[in-house]
Amino acid sequence: MRFMDEIRFDEKGLIPAIIQDHENDEVLMLGYMNENTLKRTLESGRVHFWSRSREKMWVKGETSGHTQEVKDVLVDCDMDTILVKVEQRVAACHTGYRSCFYRRVRDGDLVTIADKVFDEKEVY
Amino acid sequence: MRFMDEIRFDEKGLIPAIIQDHENDEVLMLGYMNENTLKRTLESGRVHFWSRSREKMWVKGETSGHTQEVKDVLVDCDMDTILVKVEQRVAACHTGYRSCFYRRVRDGDLVTIADKVFDEKEVY
Repeated sequence: MRFMDEIRFDEKGLIPAIIQDHENDEVLMLGYMNENTLKRTLESGRVHFWSRSREKMWVKGETSGHTQEVKDVLVDCDMDTILVKVEQRVAACHTGYRSCFYRRVRDGDLVTIADKVFDEKEVY
Repeated sequence: MRFMDEIRFDEKGLIPAIIQDHENDEVLMLGYMNENTLKRTLESGRVHFWSRSREKMWVKGETSGHTQEVKDVLVDCDMDTILVKVEQRVAACHTGYRSCFYRRVRDGDLVTIADKVFDEKEVY
């Protein structure tokens, strides 16, 4: 089965991509790809997203240098979500944390559960 | 910061929820929640989704018994994705595999990389 023929983009032409650290299995972030950025991700081995807010292609790490090198690409049963296992340079999150999921819900409030790994004011 | 006041649903009133095995960190599936099913998930400790195709609430495991017990709920930097760590009974996927991500992309084709853990014809 040819992957690019079967993959299902939503009505906006996007597919959610879960990004997971290939070494420790930490979930780092969720981004969105269109057909073009998915193809570029597969061809280049470097994660490319479509920014919904800026409406443009976005190479992870283009500003920060915190690139994501593709190690594996998996697809779910419905062919409408992909899971990309990556080697993450420094950190995935623009806030200074390694993962975008650095807060936990506890009794209805948010509690930070991680330490920053870089100073976001010096990078962005 | 109160979680339910800050969380950002999309224009359809939905938020994507990544479901991860709390024991071995395997990513099991991606589902969608609306405000009601997110609240029910938090209150009951059992994962509830909104089915976009059937347009109804859906408790994971209601047919199969393959429930997801909530162990932890995390939220990303933009407050528009959640990560739910669960104890998965039997399997997350209706196809018989433990994870919905049971296929890998290899040279443009899909390759199955997991073994089935139940017979889907006997369950559904």
